[in-house]
Amino acid sequence: MQTSPFIGELIGTLVLILLGNGVVANVVLKQTKGENAGLMAITTGWAFAVVMGVFTANAFGSPDAHINPAVTIAFAVLNQDFSQVGTYFLAQLMGAFLGAALVWLHYLPHWKVTPEPGDKLACFSTGPAIRAAGPNFISELLGTLLLIIGIVAISKAGAIPENGAIPSGLGPYLVGLLVWSIGLSLGGTTGYAINPARDLGPRLAHAVLPIPNKGTSDWRYAWIPVAAPLAGAVLAALFLQFFSL
Amino acid sequence: MQTSPFIGELIGTLVLILLGNGVVANVVLKQTKGENAGLMAITTGWAFAVVMGVFTANAFGSPDAHINPAVTIAFAVLNQDFSQVGTYFLAQLMGAFLGAALVWLHYLPHWKVTPEPGDKLACFSTGPAIRAAGPNFISELLGTLLLIIGIVAISKAGAIPENGAIPSGLGPYLVGLLVWSIGLSLGGTTGYAINPARDLGPRLAHAVLPIPNKGTSDWRYAWIPVAAPLAGAVLAALFLQFFSL
Amino acid sequence: MQTSPFIGELIGTLVLILLGNGVVANVVLKQTKGENAGLMAITTGWAFAVVMGVFTANAFGSPDAHINPAVTIAFAVLNQDFSQVGTYFLAQLMGAFLGAALVWLHYLPHWKVTPEPGDKLACFSTGPAIRAAGPNFISELLGTLLLIIGIVAISKAGAIPENGAIPSGLGPYLVGLLVWSIGLSLGGTTGYAINPARDLGPRLAHAVLPIPNKGTSDWRYAWIPVAAPLAGAVLAALFLQFFSL
Amino acid sequence: MQTSPFIGELIGTLVLILLGNGVVANVVLKQTKGENAGLMAITTGWAFAVVMGVFTANAFGSPDAHINPAVTIAFAVLNQDFSQVGTYFLAQLMGAFLGAALVWLHYLPHWKVTPEPGDKLACFSTGPAIRAAGPNFISELLGTLLLIIGIVAISKAGAIPENGAIPSGLGPYLVGLLVWSIGLSLGGTTGYAINPARDLGPRLAHAVLPIPNKGTSDWRYAWIPVAAPLAGAVLAALFLQFFSL
Repeated sequence: MQTSPFIGELIGTLVLILLGNGVVANVVLKQTKGENAGLMAITTGWAFAVVMGVFTANAFGSPDAHINPAVTIAFAVLNQDFSQVGTYFLAQLMGAFLGAALVWLHYLPHWKVTPEPGDKLACFSTGPAIRAAGPNFISELLGTLLLIIGIVAISKAGAIPENGAIPSGLGPYLVGLLVWSIGLSLGGTTGYAINPARDLGPRLAHAVLPIPNKGTSDWRYAWIPVAAPLAGAVLAALFLQFFSL
Repeated sequence: MQTSPFIGELIGTLVLILLGNGVVANVVLKQTKGENAGLMAITTGWAFAVVMGVFTANAFGSPDAHINPAVTIAFAVLNQDFSQVGTYFLAQLMGAFLGAALVWLHYLPHWKVTPEPGDKLACFSTGPAIRAAGPNFISELLGTLLLIIGIVAISKAGAIPENGAIPSGLGPYLVGLLVWSIGLSLGGTTGYAINPARDLGPRLAHAVLPIPNKGTSDWRYAWIPVAAPLAGAVLAALFLQFFSL
Repeated sequence: MQTSPFIGELIGTLVLILLGNGVVANVVLKQTKGENAGLMAITTGWAFAVVMGVFTANAFGSPDAHINPAVTIAFAVLNQDFSQVGTYFLAQLMGAFLGAALVWLHYLPHWKVTPEPGDKLACFSTGPAIRAAGPNFISELLGTLLLIIGIVAISKAGAIPENGAIPSGLGPYLVGLLVWSIGLSLGGTTGYAINPARDLGPRLAHAVLPIPNKGTSDWRYAWIPVAAPLAGAVLAALFLQFFSL
Repeated sequence: MQTSPFIGELIGTLVLILLGNGVVANVVLKQTKGENAGLMAITTGWAFAVVMGVFTANAFGSPDAHINPAVTIAFAVLNQDFSQVGTYFLAQLMGAFLGAALVWLHYLPHWKVTPEPGDKLACFSTGPAIRAAGPNFISELLGTLLLIIGIVAISKAGAIPENGAIPSGLGPYLVGLLVWSIGLSLGGTTGYAINPARDLGPRLAHAVLPIPNKGTSDWRYAWIPVAAPLAGAVLAALFLQFFSL
């Protein structure tokens, strides 16, 4: 079969969610080897999930390696080209759904030994530390704004510009670091979805998969980690355009 | 709008403080996802805040990416050129103030659930573990001295000099590592301001922002994280000049 | 003596296990300096064990630096060349056995102060968090699948392909990051053997070494971390071939 | 003043010990910001201390950047050239002594609030988890053996040799990672001195500095972290020569 941007975005996002939600499952579910390992483990795991998601997206045919609808929409605004947006969105949502299903499969014996439904939902999608629509929206918007500006800054500027572009392989690492940073610094409020597919795909998986005693999928909150990252991405693109970046 | 060193320093320092003070807020404020995550989380978060601050400062027009008045003064002494010092200082202070204000906005619901005023101030500016002007001054001076010498050492020397300069993108990462190192090793006494703008800008923000039950901004201590880093930077520059580096 | 792929794989796998099982011993055995240091310490230690295993395997004559029969079998399938598989397997198993013996020697005074036999076995080979052959097999298969796809993705694709291949030294670091990621995210169930030699060699060492009050070597479980990684590796190779990667 | 290998080794080792012992002080002394931060903080801090020690040693005139008598003796054996050994040893010992004195100065208010003399000595030199001369000697020998082999492996081999040598700046980072790895995996027994100057210089500083209620400098143990690393380094050099590396 031919690799393509669609396949690349799908498999890259799958890897992102398998590794990203995987670390949450390791820390949050009961009787795992990483139970209660805390913030450092979760943010480190998500950072490397991004690095590996980017590498696999690249390898399977997506040189852009967005693996995030917010990144796709930001570059669509920046490049004035919306022709690929629908294809990318679909691939990312499908990949996120499948990645979440694999986390469910991987941690199969641990769902029934975890009593709290909220802990199980946390292995799929994000939720706010303190529920408040306005501030939660601002948090997700701000985190995504920084994500987009950071990605563009990493790709545009090196500390020693005369050395030319960032060498191959270092770029995805630095983008992973950027997400590590956002997680440590801004993730304290809403758990840094900053990616609509990362939240919606797994939430759909949570809704349909047979998880013992799973409780609500919290659809009431679901619009925020979709709408706010998209808003933050468009805002970031406009901000970057304002400075002709 | 045109990017420029002023814009670059302002936005770079804003990003530095948003991510740097952000991780303190995540660890210190109550009911966050990172509550009590400890020293590793804080120093890691600040390290990546430096990396991302440098990338954004570069992208928005400051190839120097000082984002720290102590770095600016050190290079002014080394290059015998003080013409940009005032511009840089102003941009850095404004950026630091705005970054602190964004941390306040981002963590909005968490201020009123955090009882201790000292915890809230810690999300803005530094304070000493044991209050003693002399030793606190020495701590900040020594940390900044090492910061300046480290930055110059990273930019001047590679392990394999015949390979030429450090490749693009690796430099900011290594400077972030240097700040990580200083935080872990020398941050235990005064919380490593090592940057006058990092401390003064957010302290001004603390003084003016409407934070519930915020307590004192501790202006009595404020001169140390301003004066000591500047003194350490000048000392480092003289030390480097003594060896013609 | 001449270096060779056999010597390289043997010494590389020895270093992998000495450092990898070493960190488990540091965290799990009693009265060590790292007692109870947790998941971050273990996964970080294993990641760097991979990095250093790859560098030493390279230096001692194996440019491939598989240090893992699963990686060897995957590339044999991908390259349609099984001529070296037996040699590599033997070297990796011998290296893993010797590395485990060195961990035993290094932590010599700590075996008798550690009461729990299971803690001692954990310093040699892996065991499941919840014992269930089917899910445990799937966990090891899935982890290894991701390992192989990740290694190929890292070697095939950079974020900025026009920059050419990943610079020397960065590749082993990124593969170490991949194992760090798998450990954090998928290691919660079976402790991520994802390498038959890593599990079988040390288990043999556990069986023959004079460890005070050592208990069972758990041979009943031993087939899973051998068979599942090999199955996952073949599956990954077929998947990659399906996409002509 | 002219930079030189002597100056480079002295200042590089000073920085190594200031940052390395600094992180121990932060974690072990009372009322610091990093109290009880644990193994990850200490090993991370020491790793970056190595990275920064190498960069400063390079910048101040030592392209070799040994900052460790064990590394110096290993390369003297490998290169059959002992002419610089005495000069390097003296510079490293002086640097280590001065670095330890600066840690004492930096953490000045914290010595008298720390009751346990053993905790204070730990901020200067290493001590065994379980005191037993034979196993302690083997631990330090084995750790240093791996250090030397790792350094040579990093400098000789990259994963993709056709890319040429490791780019400038990445080498010191990888050597820091090697020490991070040794600390996490083999540091559990004797605290990984693996460097005679790192242990002897600070022990001398502990003996002469006015530390309140400081207790013994444990000279009975002092020969092991000097003799064992030197023995391990010579053994590593002979091992590498046996394979013509």
